[in-house]
Amino acid sequence: MKVNTWFGVLELDSNGKTLSSEVFPKDIRELALRSLSLRESRQNLPPEGFDLKTAAMECGFTESLSEYYSLLHKVTLETVKLQVSQALTPDQRIIQAVEALDDINETTNSLSERLFEWYGGYFPESGLSGEELAVFISRYGSRENLPPEDPHYLKAKNSMGAKLEAADEVLLKGLAESVCSLYERRKQIEAYIESSMEILAPNLALLAGPMLGARLISIAGSLEKLAAFPSSTIQVIGASKALFKHLRSRAPSPKHGIIYSHSLINTSPWWVRGKVARALAAKLSLAARIDFYSAKRNPSLENELEEKIRKIRAENPRPPQKRQEIRAKPKKKRRK
Amino acid sequence: MKVNTWFGVLELDSNGKTLSSEVFPKDIRELALRSLSLRESRQNLPPEGFDLKTAAMECGFTESLSEYYSLLHKVTLETVKLQVSQALTPDQRIIQAVEALDDINETTNSLSERLFEWYGGYFPESGLSGEELAVFISRYGSRENLPPEDPHYLKAKNSMGAKLEAADEVLLKGLAESVCSLYERRKQIEAYIESSMEILAPNLALLAGPMLGARLISIAGSLEKLAAFPSSTIQVIGASKALFKHLRSRAPSPKHGIIYSHSLINTSPWWVRGKVARALAAKLSLAARIDFYSAKRNPSLENELEEKIRKIRAENPRPPQKRQEIRAKPKKKRRK
Repeated sequence: MKVNTWFGVLELDSNGKTLSSEVFPKDIRELALRSLSLRESRQNLPPEGFDLKTAAMECGFTESLSEYYSLLHKVTLETVKLQVSQALTPDQRIIQAVEALDDINETTNSLSERLFEWYGGYFPESGLSGEELAVFISRYGSRENLPPEDPHYLKAKNSMGAKLEAADEVLLKGLAESVCSLYERRKQIEAYIESSMEILAPNLALLAGPMLGARLISIAGSLEKLAAFPSSTIQVIGASKALFKHLRSRAPSPKHGIIYSHSLINTSPWWVRGKVARALAAKLSLAARIDFYSAKRNPSLENELEEKIRKIRAENPRPPQKRQEIRAKPKKKRRK
Repeated sequence: MKVNTWFGVLELDSNGKTLSSEVFPKDIRELALRSLSLRESRQNLPPEGFDLKTAAMECGFTESLSEYYSLLHKVTLETVKLQVSQALTPDQRIIQAVEALDDINETTNSLSERLFEWYGGYFPESGLSGEELAVFISRYGSRENLPPEDPHYLKAKNSMGAKLEAADEVLLKGLAESVCSLYERRKQIEAYIESSMEILAPNLALLAGPMLGARLISIAGSLEKLAAFPSSTIQVIGASKALFKHLRSRAPSPKHGIIYSHSLINTSPWWVRGKVARALAAKLSLAARIDFYSAKRNPSLENELEEKIRKIRAENPRPPQKRQEIRAKPKKKRRK
């Protein structure tokens, strides 16, 4: 009987005695890799109650018990390290990027607003906001530094804003530069997500768009989990509040979660959005499965989806007639 | 009778007829400044029912009614502009800086956490966080770029973190640089607040410290409003939730609001904190008033405060004996 162990391959007789053995070299990393593959394959594991440490000494792998234990300790540690470093799969990296993008979006918006409010006291007529304003401030600072060829020159000349003191100008310019750099980051991360999605999940990226696809993976937790979701779950991902309200009371079920941002849904007339969302979610679920199991591009999916949507729209050209409301309304919460 | 108008000074007889007049030059800005000062002084205003436009034509200021109205329109507009631009007083600028600082603090913390979590997958043993981590990442990127003389070199060598791909390294370095730049802004704005407080409110800055003083002004809305607050209000600024709970139910009154961050309070033993807070708030209120009405430095305030605090601590060396609880507890809210 052949038995695989972490230190070598043994040939046992029926009584469990070692007949012959092939011992691996004492390279910690090599041993760790072997033990990882053994853990996955689970082939020819030693029988229950088999005394590994005696066998290791019998076949000459180690000379003493303490050497055996110290080697085992090192190999186990290395195995854990390998496992941890293997944990960062491409979808985990995309998820990190999506989460970072959300954080950056939020902080950029809040700092942009602050900049808008602060600079508004000095040049309220600029009509700029967001990135444009940040670029404007970091370039010129006070509105007095505007060159005559700038389109805002006249406005700046007649502005009723206060005079910007030098000390405040330094602060505002600095803040504006930081905001600009955050806008840069945003573009950088978006480009990263787009190119990574193209490799990891080409079909999902094609059908949903790279950003929406990445968000779906991020909420699901991994591409594997997303591929395991039924399409009805994908349809309402991101609408958990409305979903649970529906399950709890008689509130209407949510028609779409974050897939609402898909142009097929938000450009559809309201009375077919539910149907379109269902069709889209079905195809997204298929795409995620193809991506997870083969990662081959399948352009027929897109055509099928478009065909389906065209059919839905053609069948429902007009909004439905309003029926008498027959459902009971969900109980209202009593005010305290 | 002498009468001040926006276009000149008139000498009237008892019937309201113009005897002589001194007309100002037709400089819009000059006229606007004069009308502002007239609005403030309110001296020798024309009698009720006095016909300004006829008088303006009689004394030769304008030739026609339409010229009078067009000039009046321009001067009024200029006056409003002047008023708006004068609205940015030094305390308003400090308030803007304090609010920007709060925003920057919040965003820096959230981005730092994101950076910590993201980089944690690649070098979990670094033991760095916050600004140190941001500087570290923006300098080295992957832990493999660490030079042997760096104190983290050994940890990086044996790290169980994953390998950092080049594409992710670019993102992480970029984000780290943005975070570094935000930390820079923070220091810059803090320095600005400190130096501005030294000029605007030297006594408040001396007693409360520049940052706490600026925060008090920011919450009050202006130095003028802060100077008008009773000291009991200053004592609980920033504790409005606890204060209203106290007023509504039988909850204990708050002992201190944001002045808790003052070292005199948070280093005192708990049983004198209320007394210390009251003494500190009284002196802060005095300081704000001196700053608003004279802005002269008054070093005796600090000595008086220290003397007072020493007295309070000397009189209360031990925590008070716990009495039987005689007060009824505030009604607990019933759980839903």
